[in-house]
Amino acid sequence: MSNNCDYCVTAHDSVKEMHSFLRSMGYKHTFFERVKRQGAICYFGEQGRCCTLCPDGPCRIKRRAPKGKCGIDADGLAARNLLRLVNQGGAAYTHDFKTTLKTLKAISEGKSPFTVKDRKKMVWFAQKLGIETDGTDREIIGRIADYLEKEFMKDTTQPLDIIRKLAPESRVKIWERLGIIPGGYIFESHEASTKVMPNIDTDFMDLSLTSLRLGLSAGFLANIATTIIRDIIFGSPDITKGYADIGVLDKDYVNIVVHGHVPWMGSVVARMAKEKRFQDMAKEAGAKGIKVYGSLCTGQEMLQRPETAKYLDGQVGNWLTQEFVAATGAVDAFLMDKNCAAPGLADLVQKVKLHTKLIPVSSVVRLRDVPVDSSVIYDPEIVEKQAEKLILESIEAYKNRRKTYPVHIPDKKTDYIAGFGVESLLNILGGTPDPLLEAIQAGAIKGVVGLVSCTTMKNGHGTFTYEFVKELLKKDILVLITGCASSLAQAEGFTNKEAIDKFAGEGLKGVCKVLGIPPVLNFGSCLDTGRMIHLIIALSEYLGVDPSQLPVIAAAPEYYNNDAYIDGLLAVSMGINTYVNPIPPIVGGPAFTRLLTRDLEDILGGKFIVEPDPIKAAELIEKELEKKLN
Amino acid sequence: MSNNCDYCVTAHDSVKEMHSFLRSMGYKHTFFERVKRQGAICYFGEQGRCCTLCPDGPCRIKRRAPKGKCGIDADGLAARNLLRLVNQGGAAYTHDFKTTLKTLKAISEGKSPFTVKDRKKMVWFAQKLGIETDGTDREIIGRIADYLEKEFMKDTTQPLDIIRKLAPESRVKIWERLGIIPGGYIFESHEASTKVMPNIDTDFMDLSLTSLRLGLSAGFLANIATTIIRDIIFGSPDITKGYADIGVLDKDYVNIVVHGHVPWMGSVVARMAKEKRFQDMAKEAGAKGIKVYGSLCTGQEMLQRPETAKYLDGQVGNWLTQEFVAATGAVDAFLMDKNCAAPGLADLVQKVKLHTKLIPVSSVVRLRDVPVDSSVIYDPEIVEKQAEKLILESIEAYKNRRKTYPVHIPDKKTDYIAGFGVESLLNILGGTPDPLLEAIQAGAIKGVVGLVSCTTMKNGHGTFTYEFVKELLKKDILVLITGCASSLAQAEGFTNKEAIDKFAGEGLKGVCKVLGIPPVLNFGSCLDTGRMIHLIIALSEYLGVDPSQLPVIAAAPEYYNNDAYIDGLLAVSMGINTYVNPIPPIVGGPAFTRLLTRDLEDILGGKFIVEPDPIKAAELIEKELEKKLN
Repeated sequence: MSNNCDYCVTAHDSVKEMHSFLRSMGYKHTFFERVKRQGAICYFGEQGRCCTLCPDGPCRIKRRAPKGKCGIDADGLAARNLLRLVNQGGAAYTHDFKTTLKTLKAISEGKSPFTVKDRKKMVWFAQKLGIETDGTDREIIGRIADYLEKEFMKDTTQPLDIIRKLAPESRVKIWERLGIIPGGYIFESHEASTKVMPNIDTDFMDLSLTSLRLGLSAGFLANIATTIIRDIIFGSPDITKGYADIGVLDKDYVNIVVHGHVPWMGSVVARMAKEKRFQDMAKEAGAKGIKVYGSLCTGQEMLQRPETAKYLDGQVGNWLTQEFVAATGAVDAFLMDKNCAAPGLADLVQKVKLHTKLIPVSSVVRLRDVPVDSSVIYDPEIVEKQAEKLILESIEAYKNRRKTYPVHIPDKKTDYIAGFGVESLLNILGGTPDPLLEAIQAGAIKGVVGLVSCTTMKNGHGTFTYEFVKELLKKDILVLITGCASSLAQAEGFTNKEAIDKFAGEGLKGVCKVLGIPPVLNFGSCLDTGRMIHLIIALSEYLGVDPSQLPVIAAAPEYYNNDAYIDGLLAVSMGINTYVNPIPPIVGGPAFTRLLTRDLEDILGGKFIVEPDPIKAAELIEKELEKKLN
Repeated sequence: MSNNCDYCVTAHDSVKEMHSFLRSMGYKHTFFERVKRQGAICYFGEQGRCCTLCPDGPCRIKRRAPKGKCGIDADGLAARNLLRLVNQGGAAYTHDFKTTLKTLKAISEGKSPFTVKDRKKMVWFAQKLGIETDGTDREIIGRIADYLEKEFMKDTTQPLDIIRKLAPESRVKIWERLGIIPGGYIFESHEASTKVMPNIDTDFMDLSLTSLRLGLSAGFLANIATTIIRDIIFGSPDITKGYADIGVLDKDYVNIVVHGHVPWMGSVVARMAKEKRFQDMAKEAGAKGIKVYGSLCTGQEMLQRPETAKYLDGQVGNWLTQEFVAATGAVDAFLMDKNCAAPGLADLVQKVKLHTKLIPVSSVVRLRDVPVDSSVIYDPEIVEKQAEKLILESIEAYKNRRKTYPVHIPDKKTDYIAGFGVESLLNILGGTPDPLLEAIQAGAIKGVVGLVSCTTMKNGHGTFTYEFVKELLKKDILVLITGCASSLAQAEGFTNKEAIDKFAGEGLKGVCKVLGIPPVLNFGSCLDTGRMIHLIIALSEYLGVDPSQLPVIAAAPEYYNNDAYIDGLLAVSMGINTYVNPIPPIVGGPAFTRLLTRDLEDILGGKFIVEPDPIKAAELIEKELEKKLN
């Protein structure tokens, strides 16, 4: 099938094929068409020069009008707009944290089927936090939950204890000096929401510091603590293998896709779907059985850990792939966990009359035309009953798989290696980071890029990340990857052994071969940027240096959603220079832009780097890494 | 002095004069010039057709592109934009609530100079909430604080008890059916912040219900409970008299303006400034003494209650007046409480080198170029020490009053009557609402409009509200007024006895004369929309009917700031039809607009009314009131 359109720009042949397939069916409303129809982008909005907060506006900052009607300047306006997005991103991340807390409470009360899988990590975490470690798993988990809940609810004037307990001392000192050690996210967010109302906080400097506070608060509670908790419950990452891309779907099975960022419901559905009673029911319905696939970060969470990976039948793709996965006609149910439930998916299902059931499993996920009462909102106490209901509904949906809609699955899937984390990586290295550090000192590797990406449509679906990663590898830079970029890297063959010869420069090639690792190491979901921070903390402790001295760069070459701002702010706060693309809507504010892309390095040790070309961006990163090595 | 420009459109001659004065000094950067420079307004932003949430955008909904790139439709987009603003407005209002709670705690612990002034109201409130009323004032206040704190922190799945305790049963039933009885604001806001991230909640119906939840949560905790608490501490409103407009300033005194929405710091500064020791110090500095003036809602809070009004030397104006108040050169210190600290004020002070000190007294207020360490953030435990510091700084500032800047105070001030509230109004009516109800039944009054306004620059400063109120009075509609519209009404002579003959229609005139009240009754600050709700609840209980049956309309003819959305949502939730202007950025979403302006009446008993012409708007309101009477 040829792809007969010029606007379908994607890194994935599978997506191209499905797009052509949909076009051949007369459906012309996917991401690609919607991007085309939107046309040119508003200059003021793109640069962060537009304010839509009050009915006197929108105001636009321009040469003729350097101030908004209230008198706000370009810097204040851009910084306030950014803080609004940061605040939402932090809310979404800490919504995960809140769900995790609820799960821990249920476990500690013996009301949930989840149990402690990594006792060693639990004890380590409790000790780190100064929590008593005697007693049963349930007792210890209960104490950790109480500690974290107290942290979450702290007022803005009560600094988070977890930051002092987990962050390097050199960092804590810098944050104290700046007055940015935050309280719990709940009240930090409330204070920030108040500040961004018109005519309250219009000082770009204070607004920037507030963004940093949110980054640290959400970062330590969500990215860092939640990742540890999930390891405790599901087991820490260890090497797993599997297949990714739309071709993993098997038309002969009842197919369930677990979609979103949260692994709780998905993991139980995947485990229970393997039970004989459900497999038999699927067979009775005419299928060969049931298969469960991961989608974006819910999938990444599950495939990173052997305990959950073993129930997974593949990873279908990243968030921009969702419409094309559904378009196969082979998916019977999409379980929509927070977040990235694109409304275009619901539109597709409705317009082409797909039998696919879209079932929200989170309190926050809602799609127009998806009936409210179809939701099965995750509850740790009755999750097995809920999973049973979801599996039965999927089997029912399979029975309605329409004969008139031609199931079409592209013959494209790629094998991947996943499961990298601090422990599994150290294990591969033989117990110490020395082999890696020596490779860097010897010049075989130029450094490490910790990469997270959503993938956007700004430069085409995933193509920017694809080119950028290729370029980094060519330059002998080891890439750790998280978020939707992980799904992209898996499908495009960056995370298997063949990738060594295919993509790595000579130095990196040698190291990967010796260690037996791909040149791109899968670090998990976007929340697992926290896992990269664990690694950075571990390395800086091992070497006795501040993180800002490590040859590490963070990169978000196709950031899309608001939670990515938390990743970026957390990295910069750790003293890590952080590349972001597309250029965020900040450049309308010249002093604000200078602060973020230059002055921040003097204050924090880390700054933001922007560059709209992937090749040049890789060059910039190479230079920044060289600076760290000198 | 003539006003030689065509773009200075304001209801206030004082503002016109000060604008001309500033122009004569060569300063051309006030609200008026900034509005002129901004020029035409973006159609997409104005209609709520623009989304700036992700770097793929901004997306704009248009005929050629009915969906955003993610697939969101016009309704979802407009509803999500609105929820973002509602969430900020509710945060700002509940920030007041949080400060109030902190104050109550300090009082209960005997650590604050504030005491209980209205014990009767405290006992009534405690009884309403089911709280024990034995013990000392401090003990009872402590219990109320504990109750309210628990409410504030409730999760979204734990319905607020205060709503069941205070709202009419008929309303609670409707809200229960809709599933919109919210939890505490902290977690409601967190859930909403998560929902508005891209690709989470894109269903305009659920987004609208979420806005209603925020309206009820913030409305009952802030507008309703906070108003009661302030009455308990400062005494309930009772008739007070004074003068308003810029002309209240007295150049021979050290002049302190208490500005914002919060009365805690301002009330202590005003009281202490009257102490002989400070008056003497001012005299030593060359002044005749110290005067303290109210500005916008901090002023309204204080002038409503005899206990605080007695320390106030006048009300300078509403939020759009602030630059012109400073421009007199006669203000030595502006104490900037949350909110409405326009950045244009800081710009003016800097550009014309005014000696005026701008001192933030709230943790959230920040202005560029106002040094961080100048802030004196209100703390109920040390508020008297803080007030002393502020008074001393004001006297110091007076010493720097620049000889080169010509002090210019317009000779314009108007007397007002204030202090209306449920109790004082009932008192005037002779103990029961019957006289008012009989006047309505007899047709002398057509009904009551509860009005709140910020005043905007959309149609000129306050001119829309001025015309609108004039028209309502002509039509024999009694107006209760709150927010910055109160300051406007005071300055323009709507709230004194002369207003009866000047503005009221024949029927209303008669009633006002018999009762001895102005045709516009000052109900206080914008948070005092909660006081109007108290009145509505009291009337509906007295008559044994649902609020939706009362001949009452809510109106926000010049709403500006985000907290006004809470007022509107609270009113509509109470079953009160609510007029809003300027038209909010919702009309880009046709189904969403239908919901708010039509269908909501079937569901809730109240809907939003929009009409961009003040005369036609008054006619619409007259018709709606007539419907209620039939």
